[in-house]
Amino acid sequence: MIILGVDPGLTRCGVGVIEAGVNRRLSFMHVDVVRSDSHMPQDLRLLTVYNGLCAKLDEFIPDVVSIERVFAQDNRSTVLGTAQAAGLAMLGAAQRGIPVALHTPSESKLAITGNGRAEKIQMERMVARILGLNQLPKPADAADALAIAICHALRPAGAIQGGEREQHLTAAQRQWAQAAQQANHKSARSGRAM
Amino acid sequence: MIILGVDPGLTRCGVGVIEAGVNRRLSFMHVDVVRSDSHMPQDLRLLTVYNGLCAKLDEFIPDVVSIERVFAQDNRSTVLGTAQAAGLAMLGAAQRGIPVALHTPSESKLAITGNGRAEKIQMERMVARILGLNQLPKPADAADALAIAICHALRPAGAIQGGEREQHLTAAQRQWAQAAQQANHKSARSGRAM
Repeated sequence: MIILGVDPGLTRCGVGVIEAGVNRRLSFMHVDVVRSDSHMPQDLRLLTVYNGLCAKLDEFIPDVVSIERVFAQDNRSTVLGTAQAAGLAMLGAAQRGIPVALHTPSESKLAITGNGRAEKIQMERMVARILGLNQLPKPADAADALAIAICHALRPAGAIQGGEREQHLTAAQRQWAQAAQQANHKSARSGRAM
Repeated sequence: MIILGVDPGLTRCGVGVIEAGVNRRLSFMHVDVVRSDSHMPQDLRLLTVYNGLCAKLDEFIPDVVSIERVFAQDNRSTVLGTAQAAGLAMLGAAQRGIPVALHTPSESKLAITGNGRAEKIQMERMVARILGLNQLPKPADAADALAIAICHALRPAGAIQGGEREQHLTAAQRQWAQAAQQANHKSARSGRAM
């Protein structure tokens, strides 16, 4: 199964592609950052990012697109552009009939390090180790895009996604849901999602 | 000149089309609301709104698309979906080489009523009067879309847009900029753009 991860952004939109084989064995396929010039008009920036993302979808034909969930509580001035870039990734996937999964940064940290509040450097090292890369992926947006793709592959079977609720959960699913929820509450209080 | 106004939203996205003739004489062409079901997955909702907006662009081939500017300070839970819908309208316009103008609600109120803090009912009555309509446009999203189209037609020549700054302004441009700025400061304080 090919998973294309997206770390959404208007200036830098990370794209990471991995293949998930049997026994959750993951292999690196591609990483890149789609960029748009912050001096361009916003409509042309959106077009640039959309075209860049569609080119990746057409090149790798993923089975699923895994996108980092954007939070309204995020106080960064870029939050609307980030939400728009995430929207373009969803649009491109929907136009091709590719399923979309949204994952929170806490879900990503939990799936990759076992700790929903892991530090950034710990995450990057685990991403490199899981994919057998000699170097840490650069820039951060590229590493984050690979992380969100890995997150989708390593999530507990039947894991609930951020915002969804299930009555009957296995122990692993419950741990996942609780850790993600706790980390989300923390980020909502501090006004930041990551 | 044909102006297509967009009041962005994911559940209801208002679209209003007017023609601006000589002496700023405005005539009504079309009004509609593009809808997406809030129970659908977000990627399919975005696809539905995008397809709906593109159909309007292809039907009316506007000379400019005038879109209501979205503010990150807006505390409504729908702000990210609203920003994404605005992004889709910009994308559709950019794909067709149609220029995009963003206008704040205060600019719209000032251009239509002469008061950047006008009440909603005052706005709707002026929209109906300017376009020679017997009835107030319904629902509110439809009226707002016509208002944002009219705003673009009636803005002072060379008016600066929200967020932009100019050193040398005429008296009318200065009044426009100041009124918009004041209303924006007010809406930023109250956490709402409208």
